[in-house]
Amino acid sequence: MSKQAAVIAPSILSADFARLGEDTARVLAAGGDWVHFDVMDNHYVPNLSIGPMVLSSLRDYGITAPIDVHLMIKPVDELVPAFAKAGASRISFHPEASEHIDRTIGLIHELGCKVGLVFNPATPLSYLDYVMDKLDLILLMSVNPGFGGQKFIPGTLRKIREVRQRIDASGREIRLEVDGGVTADNIGAIAAAGADTFVAGSAIFNTQDYAEVISRMRKAIG
Amino acid sequence: MSKQAAVIAPSILSADFARLGEDTARVLAAGGDWVHFDVMDNHYVPNLSIGPMVLSSLRDYGITAPIDVHLMIKPVDELVPAFAKAGASRISFHPEASEHIDRTIGLIHELGCKVGLVFNPATPLSYLDYVMDKLDLILLMSVNPGFGGQKFIPGTLRKIREVRQRIDASGREIRLEVDGGVTADNIGAIAAAGADTFVAGSAIFNTQDYAEVISRMRKAIG
Amino acid sequence: MSKQAAVIAPSILSADFARLGEDTARVLAAGGDWVHFDVMDNHYVPNLSIGPMVLSSLRDYGITAPIDVHLMIKPVDELVPAFAKAGASRISFHPEASEHIDRTIGLIHELGCKVGLVFNPATPLSYLDYVMDKLDLILLMSVNPGFGGQKFIPGTLRKIREVRQRIDASGREIRLEVDGGVTADNIGAIAAAGADTFVAGSAIFNTQDYAEVISRMRKAIG
Amino acid sequence: MSKQAAVIAPSILSADFARLGEDTARVLAAGGDWVHFDVMDNHYVPNLSIGPMVLSSLRDYGITAPIDVHLMIKPVDELVPAFAKAGASRISFHPEASEHIDRTIGLIHELGCKVGLVFNPATPLSYLDYVMDKLDLILLMSVNPGFGGQKFIPGTLRKIREVRQRIDASGREIRLEVDGGVTADNIGAIAAAGADTFVAGSAIFNTQDYAEVISRMRKAIG
Amino acid sequence: MSKQAAVIAPSILSADFARLGEDTARVLAAGGDWVHFDVMDNHYVPNLSIGPMVLSSLRDYGITAPIDVHLMIKPVDELVPAFAKAGASRISFHPEASEHIDRTIGLIHELGCKVGLVFNPATPLSYLDYVMDKLDLILLMSVNPGFGGQKFIPGTLRKIREVRQRIDASGREIRLEVDGGVTADNIGAIAAAGADTFVAGSAIFNTQDYAEVISRMRKAIG
Amino acid sequence: MSKQAAVIAPSILSADFARLGEDTARVLAAGGDWVHFDVMDNHYVPNLSIGPMVLSSLRDYGITAPIDVHLMIKPVDELVPAFAKAGASRISFHPEASEHIDRTIGLIHELGCKVGLVFNPATPLSYLDYVMDKLDLILLMSVNPGFGGQKFIPGTLRKIREVRQRIDASGREIRLEVDGGVTADNIGAIAAAGADTFVAGSAIFNTQDYAEVISRMRKAIG
Repeated sequence: MSKQAAVIAPSILSADFARLGEDTARVLAAGGDWVHFDVMDNHYVPNLSIGPMVLSSLRDYGITAPIDVHLMIKPVDELVPAFAKAGASRISFHPEASEHIDRTIGLIHELGCKVGLVFNPATPLSYLDYVMDKLDLILLMSVNPGFGGQKFIPGTLRKIREVRQRIDASGREIRLEVDGGVTADNIGAIAAAGADTFVAGSAIFNTQDYAEVISRMRKAIG
Repeated sequence: MSKQAAVIAPSILSADFARLGEDTARVLAAGGDWVHFDVMDNHYVPNLSIGPMVLSSLRDYGITAPIDVHLMIKPVDELVPAFAKAGASRISFHPEASEHIDRTIGLIHELGCKVGLVFNPATPLSYLDYVMDKLDLILLMSVNPGFGGQKFIPGTLRKIREVRQRIDASGREIRLEVDGGVTADNIGAIAAAGADTFVAGSAIFNTQDYAEVISRMRKAIG
Repeated sequence: MSKQAAVIAPSILSADFARLGEDTARVLAAGGDWVHFDVMDNHYVPNLSIGPMVLSSLRDYGITAPIDVHLMIKPVDELVPAFAKAGASRISFHPEASEHIDRTIGLIHELGCKVGLVFNPATPLSYLDYVMDKLDLILLMSVNPGFGGQKFIPGTLRKIREVRQRIDASGREIRLEVDGGVTADNIGAIAAAGADTFVAGSAIFNTQDYAEVISRMRKAIG
Repeated sequence: MSKQAAVIAPSILSADFARLGEDTARVLAAGGDWVHFDVMDNHYVPNLSIGPMVLSSLRDYGITAPIDVHLMIKPVDELVPAFAKAGASRISFHPEASEHIDRTIGLIHELGCKVGLVFNPATPLSYLDYVMDKLDLILLMSVNPGFGGQKFIPGTLRKIREVRQRIDASGREIRLEVDGGVTADNIGAIAAAGADTFVAGSAIFNTQDYAEVISRMRKAIG
Repeated sequence: MSKQAAVIAPSILSADFARLGEDTARVLAAGGDWVHFDVMDNHYVPNLSIGPMVLSSLRDYGITAPIDVHLMIKPVDELVPAFAKAGASRISFHPEASEHIDRTIGLIHELGCKVGLVFNPATPLSYLDYVMDKLDLILLMSVNPGFGGQKFIPGTLRKIREVRQRIDASGREIRLEVDGGVTADNIGAIAAAGADTFVAGSAIFNTQDYAEVISRMRKAIG
Repeated sequence: MSKQAAVIAPSILSADFARLGEDTARVLAAGGDWVHFDVMDNHYVPNLSIGPMVLSSLRDYGITAPIDVHLMIKPVDELVPAFAKAGASRISFHPEASEHIDRTIGLIHELGCKVGLVFNPATPLSYLDYVMDKLDLILLMSVNPGFGGQKFIPGTLRKIREVRQRIDASGREIRLEVDGGVTADNIGAIAAAGADTFVAGSAIFNTQDYAEVISRMRKAIG
């Protein structure tokens, strides 16, 4: 099984929330593949961001790109239907946030979305042992979730390599996404370690020319 | 102490989140006085809405009107500083959501915001007994919080009258705000019962001509 | 509004769970009016009893009497639909166990059941202030909930009188139920204080002749 | 260490709760070895079933077979003494539901019961690393717990084989139990993978002839 | 019923924890009547202080004065036996921290201690409505609990007067204790409002001459 | 990397809390290297012990030895700053008690303390997989935390050996501490298994001659 085509998923956590439709459309026009949508509930992480009504507004605005929802919430199952209905394409959650991981995976699939499991920097990979046959995506956090603008934790590279081996061994098409401190400078090393899907927030939205950054990122991925 | 001038506070929970700056500016231009900002954490209420980063974007967009934050979150104190820093003018919370109501009131004041206490439809007014000398606002919910577009609970009118009496007896300038199912049709009765501050969401944002609705509301208040 | 006809509601918490259908049928044949069904979740009270599947089995067995469900659980809303579907006639809950009391009342009504609010021995009656127009039943605990076989707390009599006044003032038909340590010896005083619905568990089920006890209870009520 | 004799443990979650004594006796007479007793608290799983008083009634009814309690509750320790006193033979719990797994194991042993650890479909086996010398039973869930009548998750077979290896390596007599969607059709494969104890609920209780099903199951186990 | 003799209860929250026996003995020798013992669990209040082992050490040291335990913990019942066993004389708790207030009152009494109910600055007095016949003490917080060294909230004086009326109306001997920012300067007004038991921490322990302060306090009480 | 010099850390959980400064100074004079400080919050463990104010008093008393704080609390991050400010040298926490282990590690380091991760007897070592490059200490519990005076769990020896291998493989200087039932009789075996830091409470404080015990311990370590 060869690695899938690279995907760049700009995180709108760093976008302008007063002009979210326009800013999202602009980053997609500049070469972004997916919209990364970070949901925080002030319980699983110490911050509160945006919920299903905001996602729904983006679909109403005309955004048709895949929307990649990262749930930093606990518990998980109660909000999943609202996100599916609002137009989510993929829904990822943290294994520590659901007592019944297999049930949550099933629920997301039943609602027609692809499903991902998210790993905090220190979370062991043993949570993958009995779900590899059901996952569509594995998201490795390379910062501690809750805020934008943090620096990439270097030790993540080894973890990416280990997940890449697990994915290859599974023989299934599972995306390996990395989120946190990804920039045009380190994205090459991240890709080399085995990632194929890249979340970038401030590295894109804090610049003037989104297309230029995304283009540099693609070149670095090679 | 005479009743204060009426304030209409459009709730942006019903606005277009993809064009939030523009929609907010438009409703203010149409006669809205305050921006009502509903925060839900999927724990105190079964929904998750918008957090401090969204509020901050509105200030960056140029919104200078008072922003009236209604926290439907539990616990309360942890998020208060982020909202104050983001530019909140008033912060209201539910007494059931804070073990230390007097401390939360003090915290909001220390951060330079005015403070309100919010009452669910069935919540008794006894929570007011020992805080009337510190409050700037009392918000009565006329629907159960968590979603927009619900119908006004008629029994709220008696509760408004009782709060009006408490405010008048206190001799202090405390706003009496009502939120939930307020329309141009019932706002007159709500004002007559003693309210001076009116939240309206879908009644305004689900129409084409915001100014027309707000104008009818003002006439009904008299 | 005159007081309604007395109802005796044997609590099957004291029945034989190995022969629950038979024991329930027997107590109804002996003169019981309603089946009182005590649900404990080991969170709101320190014990776990029986859930919706047990109620459903009673309906399948052929029990057609009203089933009066007392939820000693927190939170409340998640389990309400299962009890309604299983065949509950009335569902009562504790106000401390639901942040949104009015919503829970509405939910129970929408599912076709009558609704009650339950008061622990020390719980103030202020929770009644804004829901009297929606309740079908007020249940006063005369013991601390969680276990059968406890003694009636005498101070409950004054509380019964106060609730009776509130009900009479409301002009509505609201049942006033008392649960905890009710026996043939004290039921007369409880009725005299204003109760019209009487839960009795061990006082009935720990005897050989259910009909004799229930008959004595009815006489004492007068 | 050779595999122990097969045990079939009918789950009374699917029995008739109105005639629980009779139905339990009948399934034991039909060849059931243990009574499997599923406890749900509406917190660890989204359902509430039956508690210690129901177990106690079964013992009073005359059930002398081993009663195999599966606690789907969180936290665990508070209810353990009540189940031990009510007559439980074995008590199993989920490692995620107890912060102090070793303490809970010790508590159950001190009360004179055998102890099991339960694994949800996605739960990694690393929880076994430091308790193999203390366990009497390992229960693998082959459905997500909370409801009867679900389908067996095929990936469980690999997990059974891995646990069998751990048990054999330990040199201790630890039962390997499987619960969820077990039928006469798949029980052979489950046994072949290494299980020696089989929970079956609807597969037995939803038929007319318990003995016939159990007999077919035994044949399939071989 | 006349007011009881004044009691001064130095709070050892402000004592020297490295020399707690000596400092406690010293403040008692200087005229303190009771030892006020503040227990914080970092859940009900945002701080963690001292537990039953510390109380036990004081008894072993030879402290025989009444020890007046104020539990700023949630939940309450689990720790009560340890404090009773360690030598507590009185145990007070917050009504918001126990779902079953009457049960907690009974538990403390059964263990041989006197019992108090504590009111935060904003907590309504309605929690007293059905427990006045069981309480030995009512403790009004005049600061928000969690830390020493705060200033007395003036509005407490009215609340003290209201509680005094309730106590007098009850005809029972219930102590009225005030805690928070009590000094020799304001203790006269606090006593005049109706309090008979006075907690003081930093006002005593932050001085060199405990006896002098306590003496001034007694004179001010008159 | 050779094993570091042995450290004996007397746990003041078994000291005399009425004379904590004196008793702590005495045990240090008798040869103790660090002060082990056990913090319990009655939520993560069923007991409440001592908090930051007690630690601060020890520093004020003149204790200059390293203070080794073991947090048996959940959640963790809120109390960390208070312990750092009070004078903690090392702060250890349980991975199950923090959703964001890497963030907690970073927080403790930023506040100038060394950081440890604590493992309950049954906790798997997989929590170490991605944090070995950041830890200063690994603490293995050889009893279930919450109380002093328990017996050493023999299976801990194998776990010590496994952690020793991980530490050696890391090439970093990470202390391997053992806590629970450590005595002069078993400390030799514990050291031989790979531990270099030894907590002992009742084994030291329940004797008359601290120096004699500590001396025997050192000899046994060899």
